[in-house]
Amino acid sequence: MEKITSLKNERVKNWKKLHTKKGREKEGYYLIEGFHLVEEAIKHEAAIHELIYVSGKKVPATWQHQVHHIFEIIPEIAKALADTEAEQGIFATIKLQSTQPQVNEKQSYLLLDAIQDPGNLGTMIRTADAAGLDGVVLGEGTVDLYNGKVLRSMQGSHFHLPIYRGNLSEWISLLKEKQVPVYGTELNEQAVLYDQIGKQSAFALIMGNEGNGVAKELLAQTDQNLYIPIKGQAESLNVAIAAGIILFTLKA
Amino acid sequence: MEKITSLKNERVKNWKKLHTKKGREKEGYYLIEGFHLVEEAIKHEAAIHELIYVSGKKVPATWQHQVHHIFEIIPEIAKALADTEAEQGIFATIKLQSTQPQVNEKQSYLLLDAIQDPGNLGTMIRTADAAGLDGVVLGEGTVDLYNGKVLRSMQGSHFHLPIYRGNLSEWISLLKEKQVPVYGTELNEQAVLYDQIGKQSAFALIMGNEGNGVAKELLAQTDQNLYIPIKGQAESLNVAIAAGIILFTLKA
Repeated sequence: MEKITSLKNERVKNWKKLHTKKGREKEGYYLIEGFHLVEEAIKHEAAIHELIYVSGKKVPATWQHQVHHIFEIIPEIAKALADTEAEQGIFATIKLQSTQPQVNEKQSYLLLDAIQDPGNLGTMIRTADAAGLDGVVLGEGTVDLYNGKVLRSMQGSHFHLPIYRGNLSEWISLLKEKQVPVYGTELNEQAVLYDQIGKQSAFALIMGNEGNGVAKELLAQTDQNLYIPIKGQAESLNVAIAAGIILFTLKA
Repeated sequence: MEKITSLKNERVKNWKKLHTKKGREKEGYYLIEGFHLVEEAIKHEAAIHELIYVSGKKVPATWQHQVHHIFEIIPEIAKALADTEAEQGIFATIKLQSTQPQVNEKQSYLLLDAIQDPGNLGTMIRTADAAGLDGVVLGEGTVDLYNGKVLRSMQGSHFHLPIYRGNLSEWISLLKEKQVPVYGTELNEQAVLYDQIGKQSAFALIMGNEGNGVAKELLAQTDQNLYIPIKGQAESLNVAIAAGIILFTLKA
């Protein structure tokens, strides 16, 4: 255990770099914050590199056995590392790892095409987890998974199910080879009503960009495209809400 | 039309006050921003007090006929008034109005108990609109409706359906008098499965605080309490996602 008392310490400078995607990629780590997220990382045996907490903070002894690099910091450093005002004085750095694509028959996936809002991305991953899906695929143009707001909205779900990055068109081909039906989503009323295809034990659902929806080229590759009828005067649903409604309706 | 070129202008100072709840209540107005929201306000004949835009901005002539007080501002003022970085140089102030409670038979309502996150509140109102509900009731402890983030997430749905403020316990009594069934939500697996009660033409659904759920006293007053089974390892669903799933499942 090492004690750090200066904001100018080199480690502190490096940790602060983890607030940007560029910094995370350069350092090879991402930063999580808060008791719940660190607990989830420990519980699910994530590749925790460093455990960092404010001196005097109560931290379970088992955590201290599981992590090699432990740092005690002063409250000023916690404030500088925190992404929110309600910081809890506890952080961890976790190794960035890439997940090799692996498509199985009888599994279900959520494919995300250019999702831009961090809250939407995190919430959809949390929802996919709660619906019992087997993986989430982040297509090109999707916001970085390790953005602070994504991490807060996911509530640790990225420790529960694999998150892939990839070309969605290639993923659709892989899924089709494994006989997994692929459903796109669109606002078009000519599409199939989302609640008319029945429960599915294995499927893939594609949700699209907040402004533009799912790319036309992808919609052309799917087995069917679904839509949710809007009854009131709202123009559309938030993409994460739409994902929740369809996932819970489809998943057997 | 009046042109304002100084950040120190008294009107500008008063508009900036509308960023806080205290300021809104003192002035009696709230501020909306962006072309889409102003368009919705015009379309739905909201009580627009002032229309404010950066000189040179293209604004439909019909809008200018509908609003008496029009101000042209300089980009520096737009920046100071904006709640987001992606400001569009167009704003309006709208009169705060209270909506008298009115419960009708054969109507459906969303009741919100102490919702704290502005994005969750706005998204739930947008979802209630899209599901074809007839009103939303904000119980005590719920974040202010005119908070900038709530306004952005609602996307104008507060112009489409009435939003009430009130004591939820009194609302439940009113709803029962009108034979509208009231459903609470809880995480307890002893509650009724949300998809087992069938489509309803009229109902009220209560969603609760992000951390604590619906207050026990309210759950004791409902006809039934519903729960959504969690299949994966997530501890719970985001409250707005849960609201979306239940509303679209229940609403006939």
